[in-house]
Amino acid sequence: MSTATFGSICFDTGCFWKDGSKISKVNKPKEGKMFVKCAVTKTQKPNKEVRIGVLGASGYTGSEIVRLLANHPHFGITLMTADKKAGQSIGSAFPHLVTQDLPDMVSVKDANFSDVDAVFCCLPHGTTQEIIKALPKGLKIVDLSADFRLQNISEYEEWYGQAHRAPDLQKEAVYGLTELLREEVKSARLVANPGCYPTSVQLPLVPLIKANLIEFRNIIIDAKSGVSGAGRGAKEANLYTEISEGIYSYGITRHRHVPEIEQGLSEAANSKITISFTPHLMPMNRGMQSTIYVEMAPGVTIDDLYHQLKISYEGSSSAKFMQIDNLVKGASGQALQNLNVMMGYPENTGLLYLPLFP
Amino acid sequence: MSTATFGSICFDTGCFWKDGSKISKVNKPKEGKMFVKCAVTKTQKPNKEVRIGVLGASGYTGSEIVRLLANHPHFGITLMTADKKAGQSIGSAFPHLVTQDLPDMVSVKDANFSDVDAVFCCLPHGTTQEIIKALPKGLKIVDLSADFRLQNISEYEEWYGQAHRAPDLQKEAVYGLTELLREEVKSARLVANPGCYPTSVQLPLVPLIKANLIEFRNIIIDAKSGVSGAGRGAKEANLYTEISEGIYSYGITRHRHVPEIEQGLSEAANSKITISFTPHLMPMNRGMQSTIYVEMAPGVTIDDLYHQLKISYEGSSSAKFMQIDNLVKGASGQALQNLNVMMGYPENTGLLYLPLFP
Amino acid sequence: MSTATFGSICFDTGCFWKDGSKISKVNKPKEGKMFVKCAVTKTQKPNKEVRIGVLGASGYTGSEIVRLLANHPHFGITLMTADKKAGQSIGSAFPHLVTQDLPDMVSVKDANFSDVDAVFCCLPHGTTQEIIKALPKGLKIVDLSADFRLQNISEYEEWYGQAHRAPDLQKEAVYGLTELLREEVKSARLVANPGCYPTSVQLPLVPLIKANLIEFRNIIIDAKSGVSGAGRGAKEANLYTEISEGIYSYGITRHRHVPEIEQGLSEAANSKITISFTPHLMPMNRGMQSTIYVEMAPGVTIDDLYHQLKISYEGSSSAKFMQIDNLVKGASGQALQNLNVMMGYPENTGLLYLPLFP
Amino acid sequence: MSTATFGSICFDTGCFWKDGSKISKVNKPKEGKMFVKCAVTKTQKPNKEVRIGVLGASGYTGSEIVRLLANHPHFGITLMTADKKAGQSIGSAFPHLVTQDLPDMVSVKDANFSDVDAVFCCLPHGTTQEIIKALPKGLKIVDLSADFRLQNISEYEEWYGQAHRAPDLQKEAVYGLTELLREEVKSARLVANPGCYPTSVQLPLVPLIKANLIEFRNIIIDAKSGVSGAGRGAKEANLYTEISEGIYSYGITRHRHVPEIEQGLSEAANSKITISFTPHLMPMNRGMQSTIYVEMAPGVTIDDLYHQLKISYEGSSSAKFMQIDNLVKGASGQALQNLNVMMGYPENTGLLYLPLFP
Repeated sequence: MSTATFGSICFDTGCFWKDGSKISKVNKPKEGKMFVKCAVTKTQKPNKEVRIGVLGASGYTGSEIVRLLANHPHFGITLMTADKKAGQSIGSAFPHLVTQDLPDMVSVKDANFSDVDAVFCCLPHGTTQEIIKALPKGLKIVDLSADFRLQNISEYEEWYGQAHRAPDLQKEAVYGLTELLREEVKSARLVANPGCYPTSVQLPLVPLIKANLIEFRNIIIDAKSGVSGAGRGAKEANLYTEISEGIYSYGITRHRHVPEIEQGLSEAANSKITISFTPHLMPMNRGMQSTIYVEMAPGVTIDDLYHQLKISYEGSSSAKFMQIDNLVKGASGQALQNLNVMMGYPENTGLLYLPLFP
Repeated sequence: MSTATFGSICFDTGCFWKDGSKISKVNKPKEGKMFVKCAVTKTQKPNKEVRIGVLGASGYTGSEIVRLLANHPHFGITLMTADKKAGQSIGSAFPHLVTQDLPDMVSVKDANFSDVDAVFCCLPHGTTQEIIKALPKGLKIVDLSADFRLQNISEYEEWYGQAHRAPDLQKEAVYGLTELLREEVKSARLVANPGCYPTSVQLPLVPLIKANLIEFRNIIIDAKSGVSGAGRGAKEANLYTEISEGIYSYGITRHRHVPEIEQGLSEAANSKITISFTPHLMPMNRGMQSTIYVEMAPGVTIDDLYHQLKISYEGSSSAKFMQIDNLVKGASGQALQNLNVMMGYPENTGLLYLPLFP
Repeated sequence: MSTATFGSICFDTGCFWKDGSKISKVNKPKEGKMFVKCAVTKTQKPNKEVRIGVLGASGYTGSEIVRLLANHPHFGITLMTADKKAGQSIGSAFPHLVTQDLPDMVSVKDANFSDVDAVFCCLPHGTTQEIIKALPKGLKIVDLSADFRLQNISEYEEWYGQAHRAPDLQKEAVYGLTELLREEVKSARLVANPGCYPTSVQLPLVPLIKANLIEFRNIIIDAKSGVSGAGRGAKEANLYTEISEGIYSYGITRHRHVPEIEQGLSEAANSKITISFTPHLMPMNRGMQSTIYVEMAPGVTIDDLYHQLKISYEGSSSAKFMQIDNLVKGASGQALQNLNVMMGYPENTGLLYLPLFP
Repeated sequence: MSTATFGSICFDTGCFWKDGSKISKVNKPKEGKMFVKCAVTKTQKPNKEVRIGVLGASGYTGSEIVRLLANHPHFGITLMTADKKAGQSIGSAFPHLVTQDLPDMVSVKDANFSDVDAVFCCLPHGTTQEIIKALPKGLKIVDLSADFRLQNISEYEEWYGQAHRAPDLQKEAVYGLTELLREEVKSARLVANPGCYPTSVQLPLVPLIKANLIEFRNIIIDAKSGVSGAGRGAKEANLYTEISEGIYSYGITRHRHVPEIEQGLSEAANSKITISFTPHLMPMNRGMQSTIYVEMAPGVTIDDLYHQLKISYEGSSSAKFMQIDNLVKGASGQALQNLNVMMGYPENTGLLYLPLFP
């Protein structure tokens, strides 16, 4: 029998045939399976005004930055790093990005920043401080890790279990909750991109706190997150078989996003706010929902709260983009929004795609 | 207790707060739950050159057309129909489209085509023929149903169980497998958009058949599809609880895509080809994989097949876009690709988004 | 070509071949697809002491009762009703039950109760009252609907939108939260099986309220449920494509389980308790998690609460079975537990299976 | 504020509260979250006739053996090993087994076999040979790995990349496809439990081959499997985010189950059979479907095939249990079926549970 098998492997919305002809020759010369990659239009990459480096491109937030930049009119990627996958193309790490005509990934230590104007730093917590400290001073940086989110470095040490290694940079870092701190982001060199949970909590609560519409006590946050927020690291707890058909509460009372949320709310209140925060892991890829329970201040009605939120976000001419998501808004999307602001572009540039459904 | 509850409902990649203040007032005046919709940038809709009508906008293929057109530089929607949801906005039928500033949906019989240049017809099989027959003759039409896909109207009657009601239109209709029939599509008025399974099968097989590289017998297609292809109709078989954690074979030997596939392959072979086709339903939303088993012609090697496919699709300067998917390529995406061709635009206009992952 | 195709369709943990030979002959006499059902051991059904009728066997709770009884040593099914699927076997409605040697389903009006000692009533809310009223008086009944859960029939009218049609039966009905009302269940003729959400909330809170360990105000319940609780009705909102990859809050402030929960907690407190209850629908089949936020009474510690719960459930010699689930404990499982109690059998009879994982 | 939070974590069908009081005290003495484990009936474990050791109890097949034995009337577990989780209880590795009153897991090297009559060996391929070689000779063994499945040890070396380390044991090993080799299994000391794919393929094909009803050429197997078959090892490819919403073909032309299938079919045919085998990974936990394409022998009809399969499995008085699944039949279930046969018990003892749905 001399047969051939074709297959088209489908990733979410796309479909690629893979070349399997080499393997097929090893075993049985007369039979073959053939997976052929389709020709797909190379995304046009004319020279862009801002040359971007993505540190940690082989993780989920890194790959999401690459995806978002594919259609950005001003930002073009010139450098990608990935220590464990150095030498590989982004398409080999993420088949859905196989059509992108981009340089191969290199290890951070081999990275050449001479062609880079701005950096998205998508590296793990803890190691990020020293890497950012060593970057050329002229670079604009949006850091997606938690390393520069807590203004108080002793709080960092308490929650992350190690002394902060770049306290001077911490003083310089701006917390990048774009809608609330747009002016500070505009002139920042280093932006600490907020966590996904803190984003989903601060956006509705900060305006209400500032307007004294809610009590500062008894704030209860019951948050539900998809799995992509856990990243691409191979952990037993994040296997398909462990996650599907279940709900998991985790980090009870000790989730590291608690101090970040309390920092933001306390600043808005001008007094110390503590919260009750319970995160849950859901069997879905993306997305996050925070259900928030608050007590209204005396005399305040639901309509007052509604009105305040309406004017806080609709009233502002520049605060148009409000999609909240643990990748698009919570991490990569907000990171891009921040760099847009830092570089003087409209903040929703490259972010106007509609969500997929179903 | 005077409490308020905030929630943000997340649809796939986006997140919206909903106004629940009205309900909350009904029951307990002092407590309220508040879901507030975020302000999101209205997609800019300058006047576009081509005015589009979407018939059947409340189904999955219709809504996908709306999503794809949101960023199309030349096509702008001026009419949407949905008989059961007439009078509603697209955002009420599909929350992920809530940001689109579009006219409310109307019933087909109330549709005014005076502001329409071209139509995507996303209606069910069977009823489509008479609706298209009644449309103004000047309209360009891409029909996503199966009603004009089979050239032989007696074959239509056999497989769809009713006589064809627009045999003259059938003669005019062009089968819209863009890569293979681009020239015919270019000058067509009515394009029958291919089915998702037939697309995934004909694209790899037709070039191999034309080049006499494979035998015309014993072609076996084992296809796996996501659930969105079944549409948004409320059927017990498509409930979450019925689909998840299972695989279903369906339409064994009698799937209606069989004559469509055999029509295309036979035309390429210049002789009658019959296939063995087994579709399976998978617990996933989108995507499709067809694993195809063929016998190679004598003396032909895997490398010959590979080479042929490579030149068939990479060699052609205009056949760049090749994502195959049961919504993006199989239905709505290919429909848009076809209308681009019919209107003289680059065929991948508005189709350059990368797939989401994860 | 004279080929045959075999397939084995897998439902959750089992796998069946189906006979497709009849269809295959229609079209192409020389080719065939064959799905052959395996021979599976018929579950042995010796004559059991208690003859069971299942009203509404074609829904999820009904089928779960059938599954649980398959290995029950004392209960044997002699009657099953299903109005829309009257005349069909349970295996045609639920392939995973195909091995059960049971009578075909009949419509309720044709049901013969002469061979029935006890009934599980798995019918929709609203219609159940009249059907139960018409049953022979000698039958023991566990009603899985909400029709007899609210002691106050004016509350029933408020929340269910119709006057109660069997107020006398309501007075007789016992609320079947087994662990808390075991003695009442023991002597009951009609048991109102609790809702799934109320079960998950009352079991932990009632002992704490009775022991005055928590404040009666500010009780917040954030509940997450799988989809099976929504039943097998064909609704757009419960399609696979609508549910997967999302979270939905529903019934905000007006979920019908609120009065049921408040009834139970208020009775325990001897004073009116109101709660804040937010249910969410999750992309999973079974299972439920209620995250409950309470204020501790002055001087009470976490350890006090823990100790109380420990003695409340471990201390009781008969309260061993505590699995909580929206089918096994929340509906069908608790219904069986209740009938075990009503008939004088150990309450976990037939309920000792371990959960599947993964 | 002095609040407490209760949560109930739900695993598939069960629900457990967890004690989180210790963590809660670390941070904020006045607030606490409390997860309390319910009291659940300890499964009764009277002394059983056959004392079972489970080697590799912390993996999915090992835990499934534990689950299945929980209700087995004759087999009782006296030893469990797990090198990485030595010293832990089975409940700490698998919360759904928390109610089982079983000895803690030990490392294999510390295992004491003096209280063991039979062993399920659930260890990885490759390391199993030497461990089984070192076991006391009096033990009955069912090996779930691939180490003793291939009779030809040079074929083992070719496909598994290392020389076989127990060639004498290989000669003794019986291939445990129970329905087809029941007599050999009955008297075996060491049974090589078949792979899940080979089971799903050999059961339908072997009787047809033996009866000369199908051609021995052009056998095409398109197999789809759930994820649990990949085991509990932490691999990037098996993360929830990688698996959900996609289909993956893998092991094209080189899957290690190919020689096992060809061995079984060739033996039935008394001549060398080669197959075309394409496995696919599906977004579901359990279950497997193999769609098999064969050519019928001249003059043979679909009805002939159907009849043969019917008599092959229904005709045999002892071949009643036929559920095919990649855990229940494919691995753990078939392993238990085999040990039942080896110990002289009815082969479906402890295997009569019905599948869950939904």
